[in-house]
This record gives sequence, C-alpha cells and structure tokens, in this order.
Amino acid sequence: MRNLDALFTPRAVAILGASNDETKYGNWISVQALRMSRPVYLVNRRGEPVLGQPTYRTMAEIQKPVDCVVITVPANGFEAAVDDALAAGATAIVGITSGFAELGEEGRATQIAVADKIRAAGAVLLGPNCLGVLDATSDLFLVSNPLPHGPIGLVSQSGNMALELSKFLADRGLGFSRFASLGNQADLGAADLIRAYAHHPGTEVIAAYCEDFQDGRDFVAAAGEAVAAGKPVVLLTVGSSTASNRAARSHTGALTSDSAVIDAACRAAGVDRVRSPREMADLVAALHRHGSRPARRVAVIADGGGHASTASDIADANGLYVNEFRNSLQAALKDDLPPSAGVANPVDLAGAGEQDITSFARTIDRVLADPDIDSVLVTGYFGGYGDYGPELAAREIATATVIAEHVHRHGKPLALHTMCSDSIAADELRRNGIGVFRVVDDAARTLGMLADHADRRPHTRPLPPPADPVTGNGYWDARELLKAGGLSFPAARLTTDVVEAANEIGYPVVLKAMGLLHKSDAGGVAIGLSNEDKLRAAHKDMVTRLDVTEYCVEAMADTTDGVELIVGVRRDPRFGPVLMVGLGGVFAEILKDVTFALAPVTPAEAETMLRALKAAPLLHGARGRRPVDLAATAHAVAAIAEVAAAHPEIAELEVNPLLATPGGCLGLDARIVQR
Amino acid sequence: MRNLDALFTPRAVAILGASNDETKYGNWISVQALRMSRPVYLVNRRGEPVLGQPTYRTMAEIQKPVDCVVITVPANGFEAAVDDALAAGATAIVGITSGFAELGEEGRATQIAVADKIRAAGAVLLGPNCLGVLDATSDLFLVSNPLPHGPIGLVSQSGNMALELSKFLADRGLGFSRFASLGNQADLGAADLIRAYAHHPGTEVIAAYCEDFQDGRDFVAAAGEAVAAGKPVVLLTVGSSTASNRAARSHTGALTSDSAVIDAACRAAGVDRVRSPREMADLVAALHRHGSRPARRVAVIADGGGHASTASDIADANGLYVNEFRNSLQAALKDDLPPSAGVANPVDLAGAGEQDITSFARTIDRVLADPDIDSVLVTGYFGGYGDYGPELAAREIATATVIAEHVHRHGKPLALHTMCSDSIAADELRRNGIGVFRVVDDAARTLGMLADHADRRPHTRPLPPPADPVTGNGYWDARELLKAGGLSFPAARLTTDVVEAANEIGYPVVLKAMGLLHKSDAGGVAIGLSNEDKLRAAHKDMVTRLDVTEYCVEAMADTTDGVELIVGVRRDPRFGPVLMVGLGGVFAEILKDVTFALAPVTPAEAETMLRALKAAPLLHGARGRRPVDLAATAHAVAAIAEVAAAHPEIAELEVNPLLATPGGCLGLDARIVQR
Repeated sequence: MRNLDALFTPRAVAILGASNDETKYGNWISVQALRMSRPVYLVNRRGEPVLGQPTYRTMAEIQKPVDCVVITVPANGFEAAVDDALAAGATAIVGITSGFAELGEEGRATQIAVADKIRAAGAVLLGPNCLGVLDATSDLFLVSNPLPHGPIGLVSQSGNMALELSKFLADRGLGFSRFASLGNQADLGAADLIRAYAHHPGTEVIAAYCEDFQDGRDFVAAAGEAVAAGKPVVLLTVGSSTASNRAARSHTGALTSDSAVIDAACRAAGVDRVRSPREMADLVAALHRHGSRPARRVAVIADGGGHASTASDIADANGLYVNEFRNSLQAALKDDLPPSAGVANPVDLAGAGEQDITSFARTIDRVLADPDIDSVLVTGYFGGYGDYGPELAAREIATATVIAEHVHRHGKPLALHTMCSDSIAADELRRNGIGVFRVVDDAARTLGMLADHADRRPHTRPLPPPADPVTGNGYWDARELLKAGGLSFPAARLTTDVVEAANEIGYPVVLKAMGLLHKSDAGGVAIGLSNEDKLRAAHKDMVTRLDVTEYCVEAMADTTDGVELIVGVRRDPRFGPVLMVGLGGVFAEILKDVTFALAPVTPAEAETMLRALKAAPLLHGARGRRPVDLAATAHAVAAIAEVAAAHPEIAELEVNPLLATPGGCLGLDARIVQR
Repeated sequence: MRNLDALFTPRAVAILGASNDETKYGNWISVQALRMSRPVYLVNRRGEPVLGQPTYRTMAEIQKPVDCVVITVPANGFEAAVDDALAAGATAIVGITSGFAELGEEGRATQIAVADKIRAAGAVLLGPNCLGVLDATSDLFLVSNPLPHGPIGLVSQSGNMALELSKFLADRGLGFSRFASLGNQADLGAADLIRAYAHHPGTEVIAAYCEDFQDGRDFVAAAGEAVAAGKPVVLLTVGSSTASNRAARSHTGALTSDSAVIDAACRAAGVDRVRSPREMADLVAALHRHGSRPARRVAVIADGGGHASTASDIADANGLYVNEFRNSLQAALKDDLPPSAGVANPVDLAGAGEQDITSFARTIDRVLADPDIDSVLVTGYFGGYGDYGPELAAREIATATVIAEHVHRHGKPLALHTMCSDSIAADELRRNGIGVFRVVDDAARTLGMLADHADRRPHTRPLPPPADPVTGNGYWDARELLKAGGLSFPAARLTTDVVEAANEIGYPVVLKAMGLLHKSDAGGVAIGLSNEDKLRAAHKDMVTRLDVTEYCVEAMADTTDGVELIVGVRRDPRFGPVLMVGLGGVFAEILKDVTFALAPVTPAEAETMLRALKAAPLLHGARGRRPVDLAATAHAVAAIAEVAAAHPEIAELEVNPLLATPGGCLGLDARIVQR
C-alpha cells in the first residue's frame, strides 16, 4: 500500500500558481486552503500578494519544509513545477493542471514521464487534470469549493459529480470525510485511494465515481479489502450505453469497460453499483445508517389503502418481498386496529392514525419484532397529522421519537415515506437517525438496494499462476487443454483412419473435420453416424468438399433430457479473464440469457451462475424432464474458468455446447482464440 | 353520457351533517364550501349554528332550490338523507358517508338499493365513501382540504393519493381543474367522470387513480374518447404485486384486475400508465407543457464529461435513443465549442459554460433544429453559474430566457436537470415553461414517458355482436369454430375408421384420441405416423389404454423452419376478451415471452404483438432459417381473437401450438373452456 500521509495529512502545503483571478483554480483553491490551520505557502511567479497574503516566486524561496504541493500552473510549466516541488522535498503532488492524456498521445507521454519521475523520487501524484483533495478529519481543504463534512469517503473522476453528490449528501445530513479527485490517474488510481480510505478511521462508507478502472483486478482487490474491513464501497460508473462510451472517450481518454464486466467485478468485490448520483446518495446514507442488514422481506405500513397498494407494488418492483404476515402477527394487529384495517401485509391503518397516532409506533414495533420481517416501509401521511392541531402535533412528535427507539432497538432498516416531509415530526425522525423520503419510489428503491447489499457474497480470488502457454487453437488442442483441467469429453480419436477409430469407440459416432475455423458452419461436423456405412459416406463427403485429412471421431453423447450450455472465458483488457455462462443454441443467442463472473470461480459460484439463468428451470427438470447433474455441471464450468485464468495467452476459450445431462456434463465442442 | 352539471356547476349546495367538530368531514367540507360564491345551506339535525352560520334541521326547512347535496351523516342515516335530498329536488348527491360495500355484502346491497333509487329519480350519486368534489373553474369546493387550482382533472379512488398528487403538482406550478373522489362508485364510475372531463374546457390533462375499473371496456371507451379529444389520460393503478391485491381487497372491496390486462387496456385506450404519484406528476406536467410530441431521439447536453456519460446511460435505460449526431451537426458544434468538447452526442461543453454561458443556448438551438433530434436533455450545472458573480448571474438568466425561446420556437420537448434547481436562473426557466429537474433520473424518465406517449397508437374496437353460442369443448368443436372464423388447420377426419381416413388424407398422419381433456398428457396424440402399420399400432395402443372410440386423423404438418406459438383468448371479468400471443413450448413457459391485447385486433395489431415478442427474431429467420409468413400468422392470430370476442360464452379459447412456417400458418391443436 502506498503511503498517502503527505497527501491527506501534510504538515505544510504550497500552492504553485496562486492567483487573484477569480476565474482560476489557483484562486479558488487558495481561498479554501487559507482556511486550514497548517502552514500554506502561496507561490506566484510575479511574487505579488494573493488574497492579501505574501507570496513566493519559487518553491526554493520558501525555505521551510513542505510535504504537499498543489500545482495549478499551465501545462507547459507543469514539469518544471514538479521538479521544483520534488527538489523542495515534497512527497505529495496534487496536479490540477490539465492538458495531458485527455488531449491525446503526446499529452499521455508527458504525463507518464512526469509520473515516473515523481515515483522515482518516492513521492505520489494525484492527477494531473484533477480538482484537488480534501480531508475533513485533518482539516485539509485543497479543493475549489467548500464541501460538507461527514463520514463518506469519495473518490471521483468528475468534479461536477462530486459537487452534485455533496449537495445530495448535505440534504441527507451527510458529507465527506475525504474527497480525492482522480483526474488522469497518472500515478495514484482509484484502487490506491480506496485502500487508503479503508484504513481511514473517519471514513465509514466509500463512494466512487470512476470511468477508467486501469488495473481492474487491483480495483477489485482494493474494493474487496475495504468491504471486508466493514467499509461498503458504492460505485457509480458509466458505459451502460454506447453514447456514454462516446462521452467517456472524449472526456478523459478513458477506455470504459463493458458494463456486464463491471457488474461481474462489482459482484466479486462486493461493491454496490448504482446508476445515478441520487441512488448513490440514498444508498450511502442507508448504509451509513443501517450497515449491512437484511432488508428483503419488507412490511409495508400505510395509513390508507391507496398508499398501501401503491407502495407494495413499488416495493415488489424493487426486488423486495411483501410476504403475507404469519397468522399470529395478523391476529395481534387485528386486535389493535379498526375493523376495516388491512393486517395481512401491507398494513392499512384505515383511520387508526387519526384516531390514535400511537398506533403507528405500536404497529411498527410489532412487525419489527417478527422474525420473518427484515425491514419496514412506512408510507403516506405520517408527519402531516400535526396540521390538524397542536395537541395532535405534540403526540405525532412523541410518536416519532418512539418509532426511532423501536427501530434502533430491533436493529432492522426502516424507510419512512411521507408526503409531509418538511414537518417537525419528519425532522424529529431524521434527527433520530430515521431515513425520511418525500417520494415512496426512493424509499422502496433504497430498501431494495440495502437488501441487495446484504445479499452480496464477495468472492475475490487471485489469478492462478500462469501455466505453460499453449500454441494450438484447434478443437483437439482445446480439448486436450480442458481435459487436463478436469473437463470431461466423449471418448474420441484424432485420426486419419476414421473407421478404425470408430471401431475402437463404438457406434454411434460423431465425425469432425479438423483444421477448420468454423467447422459446423462449413459442414465439417456429422452427428449420429450409427454404422460404418454412414461414417464412410460422411467421411467421403467431407474429404471431397473440405479437402481435410485429419478427423476427430467421437462417441455420440446421449442428449436425452440434456440442456446445451455455452461457457466462455474472455480476457478483458482491464478486468482479466471473465467467465460467461449461458443457455446454448438459437434461443440463447436471441434471448441473451447469460451471466458473467470474474474467473476463476469455485464450483459453488459456478452453480450460483447457473441458477441465475432465466432458463434455470430447464436445468431443474421442467415439464417432466429429469433434472441435470447440477454439481457436475458447476464443476465443469469452474474447470473451464480455471484453465482460462491460468493461460494469459488465450484471449477467448469457449466450450459450446457444454452438454448438461442427468448423468453428468460433457464438452461437445471447444475452441481457443489466441491473443 | 350522464349529465353532471348539478355535480360540477350546481346553483346551490346543501351539506347534510354540517358540524363544528373539527375531527369530522361535516366540518372540514363545510369550511371549504363556505368559501364558495353560490348559496350553501348547512343542515344539522340539532339546528345549532355551525361555523357561525345558521343551520337547517332538515332539507325541507330550506325552502329554496338546491341541486347538489353533500351527505356526511352516519351510515344508518344515509338512506333517509338521500330520500330528503331527492324530495327537495336535488339532482346530484355526494356521498361522503362510509360503511357500505367496503365492509361487506350487506353494505353492498344497501348501496345498490340507494343508487338505484337515485338513478330512478334522474339524479347522480358520487360515492358513497368518497371525499367530495371540486371544480376550480366553477368555484366549487366540496372537499376536506384546499387544493391547488390548475389545468389537471383528477379522478381518484384514494383521498390521500389525491392529496399527495396535489402537493407534487403544486411543486410543478400546477393544480386541479376538477377533482372527483370516486369512493365506492355505486353510481358514477371512473368512466363517467373521465367522459365529463373530456368535455370540460378547463381540463387539459386527465389523471386517474383507480383500483376498481368496474366495466373495464367502458373505461377503455371513455379514456379512448378523451385521448382522441386531445386530453391525455394518465393512470395510476395497483395490482402489479400480489401484496397490493391483498391491500386493494381490504380497502374498497375492489376486484383488482391483473396487471398485464390493465396494460393491454391502456394500450388500447392510449392511456399512459405510471407506477407512482411522482411519475404521474412528472408526466402530467410534461404533457401539459409539450402535448403529444415525439421525444425518443434525444440530444444530451452537459457541461462535464461525468454528467454527459451518466445522463446518457440513464436516458438509454429509460428507452431514449442517444444517437450519434450527423456529421454536419458535429462540425457546427465543433466550430463553436472548445477543442476538448464532446460533439457526437452527448455534448460535453467542456468548460464552454464558464467561458461563454451563451454557448448553452446556441448548442440547444443547433440540436433542436436537427430533424433527427426529437428532444433535448440538459444536465449538470446550468443554473448554478450565477454563484460565480453578479455579471455571470445576469448572463445566465438572460441565457435561460433565450433557451426557453428556442424550445418554444422549435416545439420540441426539453428537460433540464440542474444540481442548482433553486437558483434564479432555474426559476426563470420554469417561469418560461421549461421543465426543470433536480435529479437527472426524473428528467430522463419524463422524456422517456413522453416518447412512449407519442408512440401510442390507440385501437379501441367494439366487441363484435355475439354469435350463436357453441356448446362443445373438444378439439373438433374448437377446430370447426376456428375454421369457420378463417383459421387454417391441416386436413383431417373425425372418424372411427382411422385407416380409411388416413388413406383419404395421405401419410404421414397424426392420430388424436377425442374426448380427453388433456389428450397430449394422456398419451392420446401420436405424430409422424408414416404408414398404415404405424397408424394401426398407435390406434390399437390408444384403444387399449384410453378406451376411446372416436379419433381425429390429421395430415402431418411440415414443421421445417416453423415456429410454434401459443395463442389464447381469456375473458377477463372486467375487460372482456383478452388476447395472449407467445412463443410456444417449454421455452415460452419458462421464459414467459408473451404479449397481450384486448380482443378483437386487426391483423396489423396482431403483427405488432408478434414483433413485440423477445423471440421475434426467430420469426424473422434467425441463424439461417427462412422467415415465417408473418402476414399469414398475423391474420391467424386476428381470426382467433375475432372468434373468441364473438363468443361471450367461452371463458378461454386456445390454439397451442399455432404453427407459423415460411409457407403459412396452421392451428395444430385447439381447445375451448366454457364459462
């Protein structure tokens, strides 16, 4: 782990390019920096006073120890400024200056050279083309704007995203423990900062806006470590549409990774991926409030039938289970509530709120106590009853306090939607640590995200050491490689004498012409050859048409009650080997029923992938079919992933079809694409 | 159409049950009613002054014409109150009183008797168990709370939903032209009110919260008429989860219809279905602002790469197309913007905002002028630049005005997301009719809903007149019925002499045992019988096992490159015959790839349904297969729907499989379920 003390807790800071021009970063950052209690030296090449402070013309003039230097000078002066900073003993450099890799190859080369120099000097570089760094716990403000303080550590590749998130967090009573703007990540990357945040006592939840993951496996490792250390990592990234890829390329020159691969990486690391700044703020706030608690089985409590039904539909759409309550809970609620109340889940208080507002608290207490209930979604008018008069207002506020006590005592998540979210009772709830939402959609989605978070099973695994490279890429090469890795194939012979081979194996057989790139499409595969005549005819036909001499004669697999799968491993430039498992054949292609994971995987993880397919009921034996041997299939998938992960020279390794049957699992075809 | 003048524009109103008790509707509604300019007579059985006004002990005491009476007395006095009101000449009764159908069968019977009496007197009843009625255009306030006025007509089965929607609309500068609380719909239903709103000049957009559609076809007809009259209808309903059905049943005793059927009804009527009050408010506001304009092909304009990418992803997830701009537009933007700007879509102004804020307006004008662009999504910081100083603030406000001019001149929807939504510039935009959003998710979803709205093709069709009922329910009955309706089947004979029949038809044949409910599962179907021996063997086996004497011998259809579909029509208790089209076989069952429409449909509409299947590429000839005859298949689907629609005695009519091939479309099996 890199030492980032000089970045986050420097003893003294210098700002190169400090300026009085209110349109410049050298001005904005100086304004913020001068609020700090540590020494701040402003460097301005004309030596004129800036913001009423004396300045230095060069770093050398300072003559005092400076461990962190912020550089805001134009690009053509950046390298010299870095030299000055290093010469003065700086060990952390914050490169605000832009005009490097984001403009093209020349800029990238400069940036690499500068970063190398900084690393060689034992220092670290944040940026260039970044917006600064903040550490609220060490009183460090080297950013352009004042930002709210709190328990959230933010790593961001976009300044405006950080600003927007800060506003959303402030709405939720939260702010930043640390904020680091990544910029071009010439030296420090997202992974380095996440590692530093994981060990930072003031940071409870880590938020990351990231377009370029650089070494994706290192990102996964760092995020996985943070998650394991009890610090959730919430990621907002881009690239789920082609348009955003166009934008990301023009923004920081980042190669945005394919969205499904990022999802797989997030699953491996236990990272929560969100789709917008609002989702990020809601989830970060909920994780800060509740930590990792189950939330899937939700009780919906409303003070009207319309809100009860609408919230239930929305909860369901967000992946929550609005299960019918057990009889004893229904009976207990029925005893307490009016006869017209709904007590099965959702609960409709049906006027109980107006009649006796404490029924909200009692109902919440009862459902939170039920072991089948993980979380509660309250929806409707609570918080607005105070409008009916001062007496009811006082009782509503008291009830809010009791609700908060129940929530903390039971330790289960509760989200409260109220159409009167700016009331005193709503403030009382917030003050007592309850998540209050003006819009029920947001409340339900947040509980859904919490439920997903609690269900995560991170599985970061190191890549196996590289095995001896393979050179061939034909079916037989792939088959030999995979067989050695533990995958089963039908008995087969590589031969020029197909009849002899078939006699050894026994009919029926499959005949495959070797040395063709797409042998099926070329008519180089004949299946179900039940006797020597048919084999000879197929062989003669292939020899004539394809001019192939070498053949594979293979035992015909029993496909009864079998399901054809496609299993492939592709080496992603950022995230390394990525395993894909899907339903094979024409339906898979059209319905795109596939799942992904970072390779390698354990057999248990492979089984989870198989079960996640929409077509999984086929594997379990739909419509009178026998179930396939899921354990053998999962082992086969894991074996394929392991082989691919150990062979960095292989760009793609694919088994298609992988035949899963009640009796086991066999590869029926395989191919290798070399890098 | 019922005459609702006395409900919405009464000359004089009486309130039965007027009260000084601040916890009672008789008090709340009296408070609001006394704000009206028309005569209001308060009726209180003790004759004591209410709210400082004299009261009458009975309707008879009033001695002046009263056309609208609001009844808030307890349930046991409701019927007598109705009698008094009718005797006094009232032609509109608003039943606030609860305690009827929502409590059970006895209450339902009372409510039906009262409603019959009111209709017999030539009057109308709103409710009972409703919360009142409002008409802002006629100064009518017979509701419990003051509500914002505006161009939106609301029909609602939930009072709290109306209250919540009123708050969301007020946030968006909107309010109600009319609001009617449906209650138990003993007389007037949602359809009646929507019809009245369609002819109400003050209502521009109709919003409906409805749990019980009663006569669903009438609802579709009424909504369809409103849509055709240029008044969009936005529907929030419940029932997309089993939990909300539990709630709805305990709420108003409503039988909530299946969600897919409601979707089909909405498509037929051209109704926009939303999932939450927030979506309803956003869509209603957007429709009021933009009407029915295309919005699918969106230009995303941001002042930073992070916002550009994120908004593009979110736009894409909301069904919008963020297509790459044509070269000429890219070139024009490139000329105007800094070199680091993104100009391909999304547009990243990359600092142009700070440098020259008018570049926002110029860019928006350019993209709005492009014929390939339907709408614009602006995202990021615009609205916040004013924070940098008074000069920039003035220029930002001026730019906001120019942006609004461009939007109105081009007549294309624009949604503007800004993290600084409470700024003066944001207010200026709103004041000039621009939709301003604090959260980009909401902005993108609203444009997506507008795009869906513009793409709707309503197709309300009357049911055909009932044909002579059929009585049989076997395969042969279904086949004969469908053949008469124009569906093709393979040649077949209903016979006891299967060999003779096969000789007439020609081999290969299919043998089907008649009179079995599930003949396939029972082993009563043998396919591919290629000669007389095989036919005899199959026949002998069936006779022995099934004890069946009557058989259908059928020509074996050529299934080459064929796709098996399932086509069924189910008669929904509210919405009548509903057509389902799906992919047949085991995959359909597991993957649930089905679409629905109200029957009957035209062949063109049937083709749209077929094309909407996820598996549609199979029909178009995936992976080297020949495409099926889509026109013939669509005709077959339409024929099945037409037959079922003409037979109200049929609960379910199913053709499974319907075989679509390159050469045409054949029913291979069919069944009837009588009601």
